[in-house]
Amino acid sequence: MIMTQQTVLTGITTTGIPHLGNYAGAIRPAIESSLRDSAKSSYFFMADYHALIKCQEPERVRESTLAIAATWLASGLDTDRVTFYRQSDIPEVTELSWILTCVAAKGLMNRAHAYKAAVQDNVENEAADPDKGITMGLFSYPILMAADILLFNATHVPVGKDQIQHLEMTRDIGQRFNHLFGETFTLPEAVVDENGMVLKGLDGRKMSKSYNNTIPLFEGEKKFRKLINKIVTNSLEPGEPKDPDNCTLFSIYAAFADAEAVAAMRRQYEEGIGWGEAKKQVFEHLNELLKDKREAYNELISDPAEIDRILKKGAERAREYAVPLMADVRKKVGIGPLAGGL
Amino acid sequence: MIMTQQTVLTGITTTGIPHLGNYAGAIRPAIESSLRDSAKSSYFFMADYHALIKCQEPERVRESTLAIAATWLASGLDTDRVTFYRQSDIPEVTELSWILTCVAAKGLMNRAHAYKAAVQDNVENEAADPDKGITMGLFSYPILMAADILLFNATHVPVGKDQIQHLEMTRDIGQRFNHLFGETFTLPEAVVDENGMVLKGLDGRKMSKSYNNTIPLFEGEKKFRKLINKIVTNSLEPGEPKDPDNCTLFSIYAAFADAEAVAAMRRQYEEGIGWGEAKKQVFEHLNELLKDKREAYNELISDPAEIDRILKKGAERAREYAVPLMADVRKKVGIGPLAGGL
Repeated sequence: MIMTQQTVLTGITTTGIPHLGNYAGAIRPAIESSLRDSAKSSYFFMADYHALIKCQEPERVRESTLAIAATWLASGLDTDRVTFYRQSDIPEVTELSWILTCVAAKGLMNRAHAYKAAVQDNVENEAADPDKGITMGLFSYPILMAADILLFNATHVPVGKDQIQHLEMTRDIGQRFNHLFGETFTLPEAVVDENGMVLKGLDGRKMSKSYNNTIPLFEGEKKFRKLINKIVTNSLEPGEPKDPDNCTLFSIYAAFADAEAVAAMRRQYEEGIGWGEAKKQVFEHLNELLKDKREAYNELISDPAEIDRILKKGAERAREYAVPLMADVRKKVGIGPLAGGL
Repeated sequence: MIMTQQTVLTGITTTGIPHLGNYAGAIRPAIESSLRDSAKSSYFFMADYHALIKCQEPERVRESTLAIAATWLASGLDTDRVTFYRQSDIPEVTELSWILTCVAAKGLMNRAHAYKAAVQDNVENEAADPDKGITMGLFSYPILMAADILLFNATHVPVGKDQIQHLEMTRDIGQRFNHLFGETFTLPEAVVDENGMVLKGLDGRKMSKSYNNTIPLFEGEKKFRKLINKIVTNSLEPGEPKDPDNCTLFSIYAAFADAEAVAAMRRQYEEGIGWGEAKKQVFEHLNELLKDKREAYNELISDPAEIDRILKKGAERAREYAVPLMADVRKKVGIGPLAGGL
C-alpha cells in the first residue's frame, strides 16, 4: 500500500473582511480539516499579490490582510500544524511566476473564463476595444496562481467550481515546464466540495459581499444583534406554525448548531415561535459561539506587529520548502550560479 | 543652472557570445561613456530573465551569462563606477514586475511590435490560432523591462530604434502607477544613438548572429586570424588600386584604428595593397588591440565562482537602491508591513 503525502494549499485574496458565510463555508471546514489529518501538510496564505489585481485601495488591502489573518488565527488555526503566510513575504512566488510566464502559452490565457467574461462585457457595451479596462493582472493571474501552487508541489487545491479551469491551467503550465526542463513539479488536483456549505445572507440570497447582504463575522455584539434582527422573515404572527425548510434564519442557525439543537429549533418553528423570539435565540446561540473568538480577534487586530511576526514566521517555514525548490528550478532553466555547471 | 543626475541603465540579454560587432557598437562605447562622466550613475546588467523568453537551453543561457560578464569586465568595465549585476540576483525585479502587471493595460501589450510581428507570421502561415506558439513571456516582456528600468529610476536608456516603443510603454506604465498611487517613478528617456556604429560581418552585411557572419570577440588567435582571412573582398589583384569606402575589411579596420592609422591604410589601398597583406595587417592590428583583453577574458571564464562573486557584489549595490524603493512601492499599494499603517 502506497501512502502518498497530501499537500493542501489554499489562498485567500485580501480584499474583504470575513463574514459569517466565509466562516461556515471556508474557514471553519479548512481549519477542522487541517486539525483532523496529521499526515497532511497544509499551506494557507494571504493572497495579497492577487488582491492588487482588483483593488487599488492600499488601506483596504492592508485592513483585509490584517482582518483575514486575525480571523483565521482567532478561529483556531494551529500555526504549528499549518504553514500560514503572506504571499508577498515569499520572493520566490513572483520569480517562479515569471519563469512560468516564459513557458505558458498566450492562447491558454485567451481562454480563461474571467478574461473572456470581461471581453464579453465590453462587446455587449459596444466598447471600441474589447480589451477596454482589462489589465495584464486580470489576463495573467492564472500564471501567478500556478506559481503559488507549484512552488509547494501542492497535491490538492480546494476550489469553487469557477476555479476548476485555473487548476487545469496550473497543470498545463506545470506539465509544460516538466516537459521542457525535466520532472520538477507535482501536478495538483482540484478538490471541489460539492456539498460545500453556502450560507444565506440577510435577504435570503447567498451571503456575498457583492449582494451587500453579509453579516461580518466579528462585528461588535450590538451591531451583530442588529444584523441578526434584519434577517428577512415572512409576515406570520407568533403562534402560527412556520416552515423551517424555507427560512433564511433557520438555515443560518442550522449552520452553527448541533443536530439536537437544530431539532429543538425545528419543533419551536412548528409550534409557532415568534420571529422576535427566534431571532433572539439565534443571536444568543451565535454570540455564545463566537464571543471568545471575537475577543481573540479584537486583541489580534489591535497588535498588527504581532500578526506581522506570525506571518513572517510562517513565511520562513514556507521558504524552507520554496528556496531549495527554486534553486533547482533556476539551475534547470540556466540562471543558477555560474560556478558548478548545470 | 539645474544639474540633473543622470542614471543610465543597460541590459544585455544572455543568449549569445559577444562578437566584434557587439564590442564596437555597444560594449566599447558604453564603457567609455561610463568612464567619461563621473556625475552619471550607470547600471549594466545581465538580463537573464529576458533570456528565458526565447531560450530553453539552460547551458546556452549559463554560458552566455558567463561570456558576457567576462567580456565586459575584460574590456575595462570599472565595477567601482558602474553597478554591474545579474538581473536574477535582484528579487525586487520580478516583484515589481508583478505589481506593474496589475496596472498595465492589456491593450498596451496588444500593440507591441514584437508581439504583432509574431501574430502576423502566424496569419501569413494560415495558422488556426493567430497566437500559435506565442508565450506569455513574449507577450508581457515590456512589463518586465519596465520593472528593470523603473526599479532604479533610470533617466536614460540607450536603445535601438526597435526598442523605442518599449520605452514608451515603460513611461506609460510608470505614469499609470504614479497616477494611481502617487509620484514614485521617474519616467525614463530613450537614448537612440543615430550614429551608433554598425559593424559589417564576414559577408559584408551587418554583423549579426542571425546572419551567421560574426567574428567572436575573444576567439583564440589562430581561429581569429582564420576568420579575418574569410572576410569577403573583391577579385582585384595586388598592385591594382582598391576602393576603401566600399570594403568590408577596411570598414572593420576603421572601427578599431585611430585617424592616422586609417589614413595610412587608405593610402595603401590606393597604392594597390594585396588582400592577403591587407588582411594580415588588419589581423595584426586587431590582435594587438585585443590580446591582453582576451587573456583577461580567458582567465575570467575559467573562474566562474569569481564572476558569481563580482555579480553578487553588484547586486548588493543595486539592492541598496532597489530595496528601499520597493518598500515604498509595497506600502503605497497596501502590501507593506501591517504595523505602522500606510
